[in-house]
Amino acid sequence: MEIKVVRKVLDVNNMMAAQNRQLFAEKGIFVLNLMSSPGSGKTAILEKTLSRILPEIRTAVIVGDICTSNDADRLAKSGAPVVQVNTDEFGGDCHLAAHVIASAAANLNLNAIDLLIVENVGNLVCPAEFDIGENARAVVLSVTEGEDKPLKYPLMFRVCHAAILNKTDLLPYLDYDKEAALRNIHQIHADMPIFEMSAKTEQGFEAWLKWLGKGVRG
Amino acid sequence: MEIKVVRKVLDVNNMMAAQNRQLFAEKGIFVLNLMSSPGSGKTAILEKTLSRILPEIRTAVIVGDICTSNDADRLAKSGAPVVQVNTDEFGGDCHLAAHVIASAAANLNLNAIDLLIVENVGNLVCPAEFDIGENARAVVLSVTEGEDKPLKYPLMFRVCHAAILNKTDLLPYLDYDKEAALRNIHQIHADMPIFEMSAKTEQGFEAWLKWLGKGVRG
Repeated sequence: MEIKVVRKVLDVNNMMAAQNRQLFAEKGIFVLNLMSSPGSGKTAILEKTLSRILPEIRTAVIVGDICTSNDADRLAKSGAPVVQVNTDEFGGDCHLAAHVIASAAANLNLNAIDLLIVENVGNLVCPAEFDIGENARAVVLSVTEGEDKPLKYPLMFRVCHAAILNKTDLLPYLDYDKEAALRNIHQIHADMPIFEMSAKTEQGFEAWLKWLGKGVRG
Repeated sequence: MEIKVVRKVLDVNNMMAAQNRQLFAEKGIFVLNLMSSPGSGKTAILEKTLSRILPEIRTAVIVGDICTSNDADRLAKSGAPVVQVNTDEFGGDCHLAAHVIASAAANLNLNAIDLLIVENVGNLVCPAEFDIGENARAVVLSVTEGEDKPLKYPLMFRVCHAAILNKTDLLPYLDYDKEAALRNIHQIHADMPIFEMSAKTEQGFEAWLKWLGKGVRG
């Protein structure tokens, strides 16, 4: 009974996601869904990414959080249009759903952007299940989170098109087997591109920006 | 409609949780529900905790993960009875529910334990909503996760009885405002005890073990 209801919710979501996808395609917008655990550095990555791609790539951001507008406030400093979604208005949802993205996008001038980045709610589980109409999905994993996360949260790594291994500046201070982490990611998703980088030092950003730019240019 | 169904699921869960709570009380077992983001160090904390409290406090562990038995394998080395729950058998659930705990507990000799620790699925959102029949809840936050997590995931910090600020050994290498983190926790939950500790160096473990022992002794 419960499973049937969940399936229906996902069916409705998929329908709304298809509508989003068509709208974004008509407007020529590349949409990236950025997901991760809380605190892996999504917002810091976006701050640095925006500072490097603006104004060449006209970018807007939709930020999902249960509460607060902290992340939106940080990202708005870049000058990019930012829409904050607080899911506590939707029952404290642990993910962004397609209808939420549709409402948020209505606050943006879709004729004036090339790239829409959605910073999802910090959660390595549920967001992986909800299509929001994006063109690509990326997952951020921080080197402080442990090597086995791809094996423990396989759906997230299976559905994503790229992985960012963030906070590499901390590697000297951790007992972290980076090769094992890379191997675990590829065990779940063979050949997925992995960008080893640090949002703090901006080391490794070039490959990530190249991948992002390639998506935007289609 | 969806909200009503969710409410019904939570009602059923609360009923099962009450049954668990009564069973554990009859057996004189103190039950701790340990929650956090993925990678904050729950398993490492438990490894060190078990090594210090066994065999004086007869402890068993139920470990929740979507996939893998990595954590259970690590914890079983302590000699404590460990039951692994893989939620992918329950539709990839992002939390442990009361009926899952009831099934898992049926694999333990409840007459031979004083303390049952439940290591929940790594997720700072959904597990906070599901009573599993525990006596106390603790949340682990790692200093690599950012200071504002208590404000962004308030329910978790509201429902817990104690917070662990883990990985303090990394503080010298981070731009982390620890006082802000402590302040944010107390803004959500005034007077909640916070244990600043490192599962790596075991610094700060005494206060945590004292709190845990006090719970066990009732």
